[in-house]
Amino acid sequence: MADAHPFAGDPVFDLHVAGKMELRSTVALAGADDLSLAYTPGVARVCEAIAADPSMTQHYTWVPNVVAVVSDGTAVLGLGDIGPAAAMPVMEGKAVLFKQFGNVDAVPICLATTDVEEIIETVVRLAPSFGGINLEDISAPRCFEIEDRLKDLLDIPVFHDDQHGTAVVALAALKNALTLTGRNPESTRVVISGAGAAGVAIAKILLEAGIKDLAVTDRKGIVHSGRHDLTPVKRELAEMTADKTGRTGTLAEALDGADVYLGVSGGTVPEEDVARMAADAIIFAMANPTPEVHPDVAHRHARVVATGRSDFPNQINNVLAFPGIFRGAFDAHATSITEGMKLAAAEAIADLVGDGLSEEYVIPSPFDPRVGPAVAAAVADAARRDGVARR
Amino acid sequence: MADAHPFAGDPVFDLHVAGKMELRSTVALAGADDLSLAYTPGVARVCEAIAADPSMTQHYTWVPNVVAVVSDGTAVLGLGDIGPAAAMPVMEGKAVLFKQFGNVDAVPICLATTDVEEIIETVVRLAPSFGGINLEDISAPRCFEIEDRLKDLLDIPVFHDDQHGTAVVALAALKNALTLTGRNPESTRVVISGAGAAGVAIAKILLEAGIKDLAVTDRKGIVHSGRHDLTPVKRELAEMTADKTGRTGTLAEALDGADVYLGVSGGTVPEEDVARMAADAIIFAMANPTPEVHPDVAHRHARVVATGRSDFPNQINNVLAFPGIFRGAFDAHATSITEGMKLAAAEAIADLVGDGLSEEYVIPSPFDPRVGPAVAAAVADAARRDGVARR
Repeated sequence: MADAHPFAGDPVFDLHVAGKMELRSTVALAGADDLSLAYTPGVARVCEAIAADPSMTQHYTWVPNVVAVVSDGTAVLGLGDIGPAAAMPVMEGKAVLFKQFGNVDAVPICLATTDVEEIIETVVRLAPSFGGINLEDISAPRCFEIEDRLKDLLDIPVFHDDQHGTAVVALAALKNALTLTGRNPESTRVVISGAGAAGVAIAKILLEAGIKDLAVTDRKGIVHSGRHDLTPVKRELAEMTADKTGRTGTLAEALDGADVYLGVSGGTVPEEDVARMAADAIIFAMANPTPEVHPDVAHRHARVVATGRSDFPNQINNVLAFPGIFRGAFDAHATSITEGMKLAAAEAIADLVGDGLSEEYVIPSPFDPRVGPAVAAAVADAARRDGVARR
Repeated sequence: MADAHPFAGDPVFDLHVAGKMELRSTVALAGADDLSLAYTPGVARVCEAIAADPSMTQHYTWVPNVVAVVSDGTAVLGLGDIGPAAAMPVMEGKAVLFKQFGNVDAVPICLATTDVEEIIETVVRLAPSFGGINLEDISAPRCFEIEDRLKDLLDIPVFHDDQHGTAVVALAALKNALTLTGRNPESTRVVISGAGAAGVAIAKILLEAGIKDLAVTDRKGIVHSGRHDLTPVKRELAEMTADKTGRTGTLAEALDGADVYLGVSGGTVPEEDVARMAADAIIFAMANPTPEVHPDVAHRHARVVATGRSDFPNQINNVLAFPGIFRGAFDAHATSITEGMKLAAAEAIADLVGDGLSEEYVIPSPFDPRVGPAVAAAVADAARRDGVARR
């Protein structure tokens, strides 16, 4: 493992030698007696018990604690379509985070296909081996169909983290930012730039959380039904957002007087556009590693600024959400992850800020040890309220 | 984990609560700096390196040390077609053995399909995530086609353990039994009962090891080309075995005067048939948990007796082979597992018996710590000799 490697001496590559994870036995195998319990002949009785009653899987296998982190490598970080092999280091990293922050076992599965039907049928075939499916870095709009169809086909949690993890954490931070600036959701005007996986999911969760005036922009400006270039997903998005207020035009026009700007687009927003936002504006520039508005610029025009980066205050980081969400879903043996469970996760994250709420602290640190357990408890409770818990 | 469960108090079920394995991180994530190396933004550079040169996967991911243990649950132990969910405890057990005896990370994958084409295409799609494929408990004759096709389609080791693991260990024990009884392969007459996965694979490896007079029987007697009920696999088998000597007839007729009986059939052989074998006969009755010939009976008529059970001497146990075979293949970064690698594994196992060779010791114990490393070294060497090693 420690032999020379092509990029030896580079701390990132040194850390990655032989990958970042391993499998371990949780049972002792010291001799023939142990082997006869854990393997043949003893194991046959466990198999027979499951064959007679499949729910025994929940008791006697690792399956109910294992999530498959499934990617086709088409939308990896900001790198785009780099393929399944190159996506693996991200999926291993995700698995490590699942374990550390949620005590969830996660197996990275990078698929040698980008075909929607093939991805769906492959995950369905894999499903007996896993307690949940975390879709990761699959490009829009395919990710929407894949998630929707798998949710229909499977009775285990299916969660596209790039959508919902981001949405939950953004909502958590926004809740606190609204409180800090004395706003209520119903009268807050929000602009989201980026109509991909994250933008669509953020829009949906904000609507569920009570935001009424919401515009989403793509490269051609506000997504509204007057445009003739909309995909089915964007058409549905338009009807839920800008069509309600009749807003049209450019991102700059959308920002004029807006209370909140949420960037998940990866582009750059000129300072003059940000400057026309409302007083006490809120800017979450979440593109990574280069925020749409640099925090120094944003601070000249906004009261609350958040980014995706760890080297500025208020980091919008999915790791605040996904480990606890799956932990809570698994603890409740939930058959799916509902909207109620996501909203509960956002509320739990927001609540942890408590009396410490300030312009520099609208969201807990990813390393705050309270986050995972708080999210898990809130999500498990919501699963039971929503009737999807089996325990 | 420790809460009450349906079969609490039963040692087998107590041991199986929450399954038998977990995933662990091999890197520390103590704070934001660690996260920036193991995850974003650092990880992006590892992804880019692999995108530019896929062979970097071998250095910077866990993939080259991970085998998928793939089953469709159609031929699980002696239980038969119990389905993917009920197969999981066996696959977890296998994974635990892979780790303990070979330091190979193994992920159990139980598939919700029994269709040959679907199994093949699913494994092909999963392949970027794994360094090797161990097929397990897939019923014959489908297992033959699935393995053959996957070997053609993939450039990573594909190994059906029920065939080749059993064959390697049986050959290892037989080598020593032949030495002990003063026989050479060329003049030894061998009968195998059982023409399924194990029987076919044992027949093939014995032929490669120099056995010339070999008959395989199924429920209808010796498999020979004069029969009109043969599957394509059995027809090929007949041509390689009984057709060469012209033997036909029943198992009892086959055993008359035979030197070696290898049972992988699961039936029972009457004592009067065993009694007609040659002097100093060799009987490996490998059906589990009930050997075809009880060892007490076998010992009345044979000099060397082996079974699949741990409570008698000479246990023919696949765990002697598969962990070291994959360890060796992975150490050599082999693109496949060749016949030469299997023969080398058998020889390495047999050689460990050394001067201790006796009627009660023709094969090492599964817990002999020398086995895994010896097999791995021999297999890696053979991979290099056979030109399938990348390292």
